[in-house]
Amino acid sequence: MSTASTHAPAPASVESVSPALAHYTRTALFDGVWKRPGLSPRDRSLVTLAALVALDQTRELPDYVKLALDNGVKPAEISEALLQLAFYSGWQNAVDAALATQPVFAARGIQPDQLAAVSPRLLPLDAAGEAKRARNVSQQFDAVSPGVVQNTTDLLFRELWLRPDLAPRDRSLVTVTALIATGQALAVPYHLNRALDNGLTQAEAGEVLTQLAFYTGWPRVFSALPVFKQVFEQRAANAH
Amino acid sequence: MSTASTHAPAPASVESVSPALAHYTRTALFDGVWKRPGLSPRDRSLVTLAALVALDQTRELPDYVKLALDNGVKPAEISEALLQLAFYSGWQNAVDAALATQPVFAARGIQPDQLAAVSPRLLPLDAAGEAKRARNVSQQFDAVSPGVVQNTTDLLFRELWLRPDLAPRDRSLVTVTALIATGQALAVPYHLNRALDNGLTQAEAGEVLTQLAFYTGWPRVFSALPVFKQVFEQRAANAH
Amino acid sequence: MSTASTHAPAPASVESVSPALAHYTRTALFDGVWKRPGLSPRDRSLVTLAALVALDQTRELPDYVKLALDNGVKPAEISEALLQLAFYSGWQNAVDAALATQPVFAARGIQPDQLAAVSPRLLPLDAAGEAKRARNVSQQFDAVSPGVVQNTTDLLFRELWLRPDLAPRDRSLVTVTALIATGQALAVPYHLNRALDNGLTQAEAGEVLTQLAFYTGWPRVFSALPVFKQVFEQRAANAH
Repeated sequence: MSTASTHAPAPASVESVSPALAHYTRTALFDGVWKRPGLSPRDRSLVTLAALVALDQTRELPDYVKLALDNGVKPAEISEALLQLAFYSGWQNAVDAALATQPVFAARGIQPDQLAAVSPRLLPLDAAGEAKRARNVSQQFDAVSPGVVQNTTDLLFRELWLRPDLAPRDRSLVTVTALIATGQALAVPYHLNRALDNGLTQAEAGEVLTQLAFYTGWPRVFSALPVFKQVFEQRAANAH
Repeated sequence: MSTASTHAPAPASVESVSPALAHYTRTALFDGVWKRPGLSPRDRSLVTLAALVALDQTRELPDYVKLALDNGVKPAEISEALLQLAFYSGWQNAVDAALATQPVFAARGIQPDQLAAVSPRLLPLDAAGEAKRARNVSQQFDAVSPGVVQNTTDLLFRELWLRPDLAPRDRSLVTVTALIATGQALAVPYHLNRALDNGLTQAEAGEVLTQLAFYTGWPRVFSALPVFKQVFEQRAANAH
Repeated sequence: MSTASTHAPAPASVESVSPALAHYTRTALFDGVWKRPGLSPRDRSLVTLAALVALDQTRELPDYVKLALDNGVKPAEISEALLQLAFYSGWQNAVDAALATQPVFAARGIQPDQLAAVSPRLLPLDAAGEAKRARNVSQQFDAVSPGVVQNTTDLLFRELWLRPDLAPRDRSLVTVTALIATGQALAVPYHLNRALDNGLTQAEAGEVLTQLAFYTGWPRVFSALPVFKQVFEQRAANAH
């Protein structure tokens, strides 16, 4: 795929230190996992960006942003994914990523109206589900950190998750990626279930792991595999 | 609060990629959590610096160092917090942070006598408590890594923790922050208890989590919440 | 040791922020742990490089690459360790490290034929052991992520681990280091056992932890200690 190859972030100087790393970048990575069926190049770009942001890896990020735009990720989606990752991987990760992205957006002539709005009309709230979630968290942790409990409700579940410029499926996908990249496997089931509820297929979820094995390293993905397995099996059991 | 606003590390170019990220940086972060009661701006600066150092995020660190100095964190405390974080989050994190801090200290005209001394008179040692700790660790791990056991005693508990230029409460606070930021929740109880023993209130500890949710991301704080809860409950049980 | 001192990565400006950090870098680190017996300077350099790459810490990496070369780590071994760390700590860590290493290799006049070959003659495969491993992983995770399962077999166990330019003992050492640095302690037993099977002594393994306490921070090493202990005890039990 010439698009991927054009932007292949395998700088020439990698070759003069580890020719094998450059080789595998071309073969196993860009001519390999990026071209596998089962997950669109657009989705691969979205989770790859999320992994790089969650790991605060900005050096090659501009090339990956270009590749994401070429693969059909919209500027508003990138913009909004950064906001999601501020909350779910640490604020400065998102700030660092925005600084690294800015020259690419400028070079592509991306205009303010192409970005995610500051205060858009929010998606409808599942009031009953949210009340239940808030009650659970409140009962558990109000006595520990009322501030975290309050911000989780006000900022995350009554605002962030309802923002329309990143589809709920994609928002969950970005979040699951951040959890894997930062080794927070325990929180994966909740967010993976949300992603699956919102249209991600299990086959796609499996391919997300195939992609992330490269970008977060094999061990983090092997920590996620049993968690994914359990979620899949629980959903199968619940379907009966 | 004009101080915080002046140094608000929300570079202009963030706006042109994610206006919403810039917006939430102003509202939820600098006009929000930073202004909450329950934890002083000085303490918020200390834990925020610790989080950035533990995550090796140096890009906006100079602005956060300025903010910390304006909020009343002393140069000697910053200097000493970096030493603590060398041991508790990895040596190069502290070296990277020192390099990023140097221009700020130079611009503020901070003199050598304002920094933490190399070989100060140490705080008194709790000899009985330390002997017990050393015996425990030695029994468990002498056969695995005598070097780690020896350095833990000689460098950490008979030197580092007794250095006077960062109060024991603050040293524990910095350490707990590093543990949360690096996903080492299992070690939190020991250090959180030390912080509480040395004057941190539980309400302050809860606000530390409110602050860190932004800087380490929500999931790492949600991994810490049950650990904090258990520590609080155990202390309540022991008080009876 | 003049070699270590020459390259001691304690930049002068560290001194003007934290004289104590500069002091401990000289004493506890370069005149301390680096000079301990029980693990060769060469091995200390290899695991230190692996830790820095796994933590994506490139600022002082060039100095540590110089030190590694002076300590007898071969360019081909560095080159190959980066490939290993691409798979075991995340692709961009290795790319970032290669970019930081390139000027050092260039300055030392290192030629392409000194680097690890792209497609070398592979070490012999333990076909029975590998078939068993593949069957286990396949049974567990084929239904979750067939792509991860396939790539683990094809790229990792039938290629990467058989590449000759980094000895199996060293490849496992680099991998164990990456697991500790990224907090993936659960995967340590498999790879530590491989390292011990391939000639690493338990005393050396203990010294690896003594070295890594500085570079990955004490808490990550204290998470690894019980895992190392269990592996050592299990091997002792199996020996009877």
